[in-house]
Amino acid sequence: MLQGKVLVAQGGGPTAVINQSMVGVVTEARRHAAVDGIYGALHGVRGIVDESLIDLAGETDANLEAVAATPCSALGSTRDKPDLAYCQEIFKVLQAHGIGTFFYIGGNDSSDALRILADEARKADYGLTCIHVPKTIDNDLMENDHVPGYPSAARFVASAFAGVNQDNRALPGVYVGVVMGRHAGFLTAAAAAARVYDDDGPHLIYLPERDFDQNAFIGQVKDVYDRLGRCVIAVSEGIHDAGGEAIATKLAQQVETDAHGNVQLSGTGALADLLTDAIKANTDIKRVRGDTFGYLQRSFLGCVSDVDAREAREVGVKAVQYAALGDRHGSVTIKRVGKYAVDYVLEPLEAVAGKTRVMPDYFIADSGINVSHRFLGYVRPLLGSDMAGVHRLRAAPVARILGK
Amino acid sequence: MLQGKVLVAQGGGPTAVINQSMVGVVTEARRHAAVDGIYGALHGVRGIVDESLIDLAGETDANLEAVAATPCSALGSTRDKPDLAYCQEIFKVLQAHGIGTFFYIGGNDSSDALRILADEARKADYGLTCIHVPKTIDNDLMENDHVPGYPSAARFVASAFAGVNQDNRALPGVYVGVVMGRHAGFLTAAAAAARVYDDDGPHLIYLPERDFDQNAFIGQVKDVYDRLGRCVIAVSEGIHDAGGEAIATKLAQQVETDAHGNVQLSGTGALADLLTDAIKANTDIKRVRGDTFGYLQRSFLGCVSDVDAREAREVGVKAVQYAALGDRHGSVTIKRVGKYAVDYVLEPLEAVAGKTRVMPDYFIADSGINVSHRFLGYVRPLLGSDMAGVHRLRAAPVARILGK
Repeated sequence: MLQGKVLVAQGGGPTAVINQSMVGVVTEARRHAAVDGIYGALHGVRGIVDESLIDLAGETDANLEAVAATPCSALGSTRDKPDLAYCQEIFKVLQAHGIGTFFYIGGNDSSDALRILADEARKADYGLTCIHVPKTIDNDLMENDHVPGYPSAARFVASAFAGVNQDNRALPGVYVGVVMGRHAGFLTAAAAAARVYDDDGPHLIYLPERDFDQNAFIGQVKDVYDRLGRCVIAVSEGIHDAGGEAIATKLAQQVETDAHGNVQLSGTGALADLLTDAIKANTDIKRVRGDTFGYLQRSFLGCVSDVDAREAREVGVKAVQYAALGDRHGSVTIKRVGKYAVDYVLEPLEAVAGKTRVMPDYFIADSGINVSHRFLGYVRPLLGSDMAGVHRLRAAPVARILGK
Repeated sequence: MLQGKVLVAQGGGPTAVINQSMVGVVTEARRHAAVDGIYGALHGVRGIVDESLIDLAGETDANLEAVAATPCSALGSTRDKPDLAYCQEIFKVLQAHGIGTFFYIGGNDSSDALRILADEARKADYGLTCIHVPKTIDNDLMENDHVPGYPSAARFVASAFAGVNQDNRALPGVYVGVVMGRHAGFLTAAAAAARVYDDDGPHLIYLPERDFDQNAFIGQVKDVYDRLGRCVIAVSEGIHDAGGEAIATKLAQQVETDAHGNVQLSGTGALADLLTDAIKANTDIKRVRGDTFGYLQRSFLGCVSDVDAREAREVGVKAVQYAALGDRHGSVTIKRVGKYAVDYVLEPLEAVAGKTRVMPDYFIADSGINVSHRFLGYVRPLLGSDMAGVHRLRAAPVARILGK
């Protein structure tokens, strides 16, 4: 049941569609007469502890729709991972403001915070319903076919690789693109959706689900380059050796630390540079370039999958509907039905909280450096209905006259 | 006059709309009965010397339109900068194949190749017309208000900064984005078009038209961070000290060289990493992130300004029409008329060839670390008619109850 006030907050890394979920919660909550206030917390759980709340009642529908279409957490976000003491502080504020239902839009850390919070409410016999609304570009939440935020980020990665593949055809060489995703390779794997022709890149895909070996890597790059005269490579930032040590850390220690003696892992171009250096040092290939896609993957204005936008809205709407149906805590999950529709099912918080889903073996090719056809069938409907095409000239060669 | 065969080629770095120009040349040339063949050279002038030509007669209109909408040189490109001897080799192939008009789509190097080639044809009394069709994301061609390829790249940069500004609001810290453009700051300056609200980033913009001083830079970052609690910075890859030495080179020599002892300047994340390291070493700011936008700026699938696509097509069409009107060599240039339309004027090759245009002083704020209002008025119409918006919640704060 929806009683008292509703509170909504956003946690973790922003996505292109995270505001769709927030607006889904707000607009759906407005339709329930039992709701006597809709608050937002600024910067996630941090804003609750700090009592930095805003009253969303004054928002016009028009502005809510405009915000829904704007990338990145409009309420602000946080990297705080609440422990029990932190959750008790949250609980005090929720009680003081008469919050009956708390919707937290976030990844597995956010659902874990809700799990602890739900326990506290139970102990205190306080009528609080905690609903987790999923989001993450990493796509690493258990119980979900895919997670809102991932399809738009995947669209960004596929669009980037479709472009750099064309660039690499025009000016041949080796290109390395480093993609976000520390433990799960879903986002890196989306690069494969860029391919149209048989010789299109990415020709090699390195996922955190498989061990990375630098000697094997150099050999694989050489093989592709010898065959095609060029090579486009997609690499997850989370690649690691057989012992589990991240390559970014491992290679970087041999090469460079920052001013404080720390090795940088994210928000830097270090891994791409280390890999391109390794290729230059161990091959005769002259043109070797590396890019790190960085924060553009999750925030780029205008790169939104319409499927993602719709589903992100719907998980917010369904979260409120599930809360209205009963006093059950839970996490709204996405289940795929046929080709292509989805159902939204409320799963127990414990099934999602603090757990990480990685790519199943059947999404990875036997070679370990490519995705399977099954993965391509999985990812393509997510990218949206209006992906631009990639086309080539088909003209015949002119017979040589000078014939040098 | 259009006599004999027409040859079209693409040189230099690809753009999102360079194929519009190529298709503009081909489709317009098809309408002229005097043209007895339309060839394309693979990989620019290199393909002419190698006699790697294709006969575009067999292309369907439908496929040409599909290719026009595909990013990056469909004919392939080259970094070769022909000297006199190289141009003489080109000239032999053009003569052998009866090429009467050569359309070269490229930047100032490509127009310089045409200038030498036109001289050779004159000396040999061979009826060759050389028409330069402009393209470059750097926007650095003389005689042009702007150059095809720049508006779409500017749209990418503005969309990226609009997104990272939102990301930076959600999770505050310092963000450095490094943008292409070694000598001209037009593309970096386009980041300013991302701003909607007074406190939106980029808060600082560093252009190659002004000297870069690291101490001043650190002070400027601190000032913004102290005022707003966050700071978004746009940096041109071409920033240099008062002596003209590139910062990427200067700082990199103190820090890192690659496996061959060479300092990397492009296709790496080095400059962003060096600047973020400098901020971390000289301030107490904890969250400092850097991205290098890299090749995505010029190739990203689906990030196209409709204004750019139309104009890129029209410079190709006008190139053929100018060639048909007479036997004058020249470079098709874009002149702005009112707010907003353009004229296409054929200027002498010498006016464009080998020269570099940089940002005029009136496009740069007096502070040297921002653009002027006049620049914003210049760049906004170029970004296209369908740029996504950025919107904020306007809700009022909830009064504190616990009031800690």
